[in-house]
Amino acid sequence: MERKDYAERLEALRTLMRSKAWDAVILTGSDPHCSEYPAARWKQVEWLSGFTGEAGDIVVTLDHAGLWTDTRYFIQAENQLARTGFVLHKTRVPEQVLIPEWLRLNLDSDSIIAVDGLCQSASAVASVADDFTVISVPNMLDRLWSERPAIPQTPVFTINGGESRAARLAWLRGFLRDRGCGGMLLSSLDEIAWILNVRASDIEFNPLVISYLLVTPDSADWFVLKDDAPDSVTEATFSILRSEGIHILPYSEAELSVAGWSSGKLFLDSRTVNYHFWSLADCDVDCSPSPVQMKKAIKNGFELEGIRRAQLNEGIVMETFLYWLEKSLEAGRQITERDASLKLIQLRSEMDGYKGDSFETISAYGSGAALPHYVTPRTNAPLILKGGLYLCDTGAQYEYGTTDITRTVPTGECSDLEKEDYTLVLKGHIDLAKAVFPSGTCGCHLDILARGPLWSHVRNFGHGTGHGVGFFLGVHEGPHEFRQNFNDVVFRPGMVVTDEPGIYRKDMHGVRHENMLACVEKCTNEFGSWLEFETLTLCHFDTSALLPQLLDGDELQWLNDYNEKVYLTLSPLLSPEVSEWLREKTGAIRS
Amino acid sequence: MERKDYAERLEALRTLMRSKAWDAVILTGSDPHCSEYPAARWKQVEWLSGFTGEAGDIVVTLDHAGLWTDTRYFIQAENQLARTGFVLHKTRVPEQVLIPEWLRLNLDSDSIIAVDGLCQSASAVASVADDFTVISVPNMLDRLWSERPAIPQTPVFTINGGESRAARLAWLRGFLRDRGCGGMLLSSLDEIAWILNVRASDIEFNPLVISYLLVTPDSADWFVLKDDAPDSVTEATFSILRSEGIHILPYSEAELSVAGWSSGKLFLDSRTVNYHFWSLADCDVDCSPSPVQMKKAIKNGFELEGIRRAQLNEGIVMETFLYWLEKSLEAGRQITERDASLKLIQLRSEMDGYKGDSFETISAYGSGAALPHYVTPRTNAPLILKGGLYLCDTGAQYEYGTTDITRTVPTGECSDLEKEDYTLVLKGHIDLAKAVFPSGTCGCHLDILARGPLWSHVRNFGHGTGHGVGFFLGVHEGPHEFRQNFNDVVFRPGMVVTDEPGIYRKDMHGVRHENMLACVEKCTNEFGSWLEFETLTLCHFDTSALLPQLLDGDELQWLNDYNEKVYLTLSPLLSPEVSEWLREKTGAIRS
Repeated sequence: MERKDYAERLEALRTLMRSKAWDAVILTGSDPHCSEYPAARWKQVEWLSGFTGEAGDIVVTLDHAGLWTDTRYFIQAENQLARTGFVLHKTRVPEQVLIPEWLRLNLDSDSIIAVDGLCQSASAVASVADDFTVISVPNMLDRLWSERPAIPQTPVFTINGGESRAARLAWLRGFLRDRGCGGMLLSSLDEIAWILNVRASDIEFNPLVISYLLVTPDSADWFVLKDDAPDSVTEATFSILRSEGIHILPYSEAELSVAGWSSGKLFLDSRTVNYHFWSLADCDVDCSPSPVQMKKAIKNGFELEGIRRAQLNEGIVMETFLYWLEKSLEAGRQITERDASLKLIQLRSEMDGYKGDSFETISAYGSGAALPHYVTPRTNAPLILKGGLYLCDTGAQYEYGTTDITRTVPTGECSDLEKEDYTLVLKGHIDLAKAVFPSGTCGCHLDILARGPLWSHVRNFGHGTGHGVGFFLGVHEGPHEFRQNFNDVVFRPGMVVTDEPGIYRKDMHGVRHENMLACVEKCTNEFGSWLEFETLTLCHFDTSALLPQLLDGDELQWLNDYNEKVYLTLSPLLSPEVSEWLREKTGAIRS
Repeated sequence: MERKDYAERLEALRTLMRSKAWDAVILTGSDPHCSEYPAARWKQVEWLSGFTGEAGDIVVTLDHAGLWTDTRYFIQAENQLARTGFVLHKTRVPEQVLIPEWLRLNLDSDSIIAVDGLCQSASAVASVADDFTVISVPNMLDRLWSERPAIPQTPVFTINGGESRAARLAWLRGFLRDRGCGGMLLSSLDEIAWILNVRASDIEFNPLVISYLLVTPDSADWFVLKDDAPDSVTEATFSILRSEGIHILPYSEAELSVAGWSSGKLFLDSRTVNYHFWSLADCDVDCSPSPVQMKKAIKNGFELEGIRRAQLNEGIVMETFLYWLEKSLEAGRQITERDASLKLIQLRSEMDGYKGDSFETISAYGSGAALPHYVTPRTNAPLILKGGLYLCDTGAQYEYGTTDITRTVPTGECSDLEKEDYTLVLKGHIDLAKAVFPSGTCGCHLDILARGPLWSHVRNFGHGTGHGVGFFLGVHEGPHEFRQNFNDVVFRPGMVVTDEPGIYRKDMHGVRHENMLACVEKCTNEFGSWLEFETLTLCHFDTSALLPQLLDGDELQWLNDYNEKVYLTLSPLLSPEVSEWLREKTGAIRS
């Protein structure tokens, strides 16, 4: 794609706007299921603007085209939007002007705003619907996007989630009964996958089935049939579900089930149901947050065991990878960032239960790592050189768990600034990992534990500190998180979350240290009940770039204990040469 | 008062309720100005229930009488409410059921709830008005409370706030113009005092004038005249204000000015205007938070200089007091908690500009200090004994600043648990005091710095970590605070706040270490603009009960630096024997 092609698409959209008398169009990077990662069919923002970041929303008026994205993507967006006609609007900065406010400042109140109602949540549209006339145009871009991809259809299979789908459906029905609802339409893909214990590959890196699920006290209608005939795996899955009384219906009929609903109050989570469906519901609606999100976030014992098993695999993969990288560089071999990514896939493909990566590996050397969401080029990727820092943020889908890990490793000599940054980020990582806190504590209360060591040195990072992780589901999962936002979800035993502070210095280097944690009970005493974290990830932290004098005694102890645990756990599973190398890498250090 | 007298008052109220067909009555511990500390006339909760805590709200139905108060007052409330007919409802605990929810659970939706509309904020009544029929009965208790105190009237005087009242009125008028408002009724007493640079003593410990202020583009009507003729100081003050065009009007006419308002939109802060006035306003209303609160919270240079001067006074007072206490106990003299309180008042009365205490001193030895808001008995107060911990939380009003300080001091040998608690609380105090943080940070983000060292040892405290402090105004002042609540007010340079973590062990001991801090700019760099705190309070922390091994190097350095600064600053101002003693007390310690 050339820059001018985007300018042409923008002009075609404006021609459509003029013909329809629309004053503005809002397009988001989401799909009819409010997915964080949409299939190619719904990558409307990328198609129109060329911006490939994972978070971006567009507003086009007749004289302005803006893309809103957050701190993670500022540098990338400035590069990708140059000469496309789009202007970057920054979010998650103090001076941010979000889309609803921007519209109020720039449009008359009698303006008409067109949205693709399929690709915006009801609550997102509500934030502008009071101020303007909003019209919903499902599949708006169809008339401009000649080779728009179809709705994906990949083999659907069942998995063991430690609880039967019958039990999960019964739980949801109990919830609906207590709320006085006659039914619930689930459109969030990971909620459907969780309830039904099904997976597929409809969305890259996300083992999901694009579908809707309507649950009533005595029925479960799964709108999942696409145009093509199902493959044999899918047919077998459908047979199992049919035998349990679940109706397998065409995807396209989901909207009719909402439009024709007449069985009492309908539960529709306004944050995840799309505006088009929302508008079709001609009935009493309970628009509260779906209970599935929280229930899914609190992993059961079977899921936690699976996740620990997945971490063992990843420990083997990562230590073997880091050994290979170090030895290759020592031997003077030319290794590109892309070679490193492919090496990880090769190592993982040997592991039992591997179903693909959970996101595209960020393999970034030197200044590339200064982009928190760097995309490693598929061709002509930069070489990983000796000296400085190499950052690798990677994760896998195993059929018994999803993983996410970042290691930043020195490939040789490091500057004092690199060492300081390396150590301060690790100090923050450790302080959060060893937190003890009372029940009732939220992520924004704990966030400063990871940021504090950087803040003390007037340094910071512009992304959240941690996100929930699914069980063979999305690598980003709510409702809990470590972040400054006032998210009132309290941490509860069984929640899995990443701990990933970082620092990014443009044109210099980037550091991020990430492990996955599980929230666990600690004890109860006269001050209340107490929680802490169990570190799940198993991969040593390199100590060669560490400045031990920046760690206090407890932090140093944590680091030595962790590296020792990694060695003792993994060494029996590693090849002798990697095991021997890891023994050296995990030797205790002193201040 | 006997317990049965409260039961009789409760029965009299229920007789009134039956005669009026009220299903419930809500009474709060506030006044028509939504003051945190009301004058005696409005201590309705105390009159009805006997509960003397600073925060308590009452709901009476025909078969239930409940008092809602927070963690600070649980022990006190259980003692004071015994056999009065009132039941304690706990707030600020995870399982809390607040009044609006309790009413929904316990009353039919056609119930009639009577409130004294003068003594509830509009927003508080709004939280129940949707679910029930609420009727406002101003001065409801007048018919039962035969010797109800009158509205106080004490001498009103002017002060220097570093900005003229003309400048402050002009600023407020600019704000009202920008908001499209024709006027604003201020009912919050500290906002009125701040705008007009006036003070009085209408409320104990709070140098306030009970009054309302109506500001329009070309007038300022101060409703302040009470029934008695003003004294000469007040007359002189009124003369000055009249000469500046401010109208001095009867207090009782304020409500007419609201009822008869017809000059456009009226600004009424729904959090501080009482429900009665709110109901009277028959006009367009802007009910946003008053801008005065934030403006007042950000101290100007003159105010900060005054506050620093007040801290010098308090440093002299506190060090002289602590010397006296230690020497008295060494000499075997019998010192009660009350003697200690009175000693502080005596020492302060010798200081220039002293206008009284800013709250009643909490002078508590041993298990008394386990009550965070212990009230030192006026008669038969416990002796302060040798050994264990003595806690003194005290503060003063100087005409150039308000102070608040807590010191917990060992009076001799301490147990290991006392030493641990003493040290961990101090560690938390220090970690918050030396925080560095980016612009945009709120109190709930920083709160864990003070709690973290206790949390690590599965200990906690049940009150906020810090509150704003006025300039010769209330010792509690918003809108910023250190607390877990999601208060979205960000810290800004010029804000003054306390740092007062603690720990409380029933029947054993209590520890609290409190200094006042000022938020100041640190620097700006590529990561943003940075803030930190300047510690204002000048009084050493005793190191004899400290376990230095629980502090890290930075914390120990902070403590030694602070104690050294206290010595160097105060020693020229202290008597030779106190100065010599302080030299010993502030010797540097090592881990």
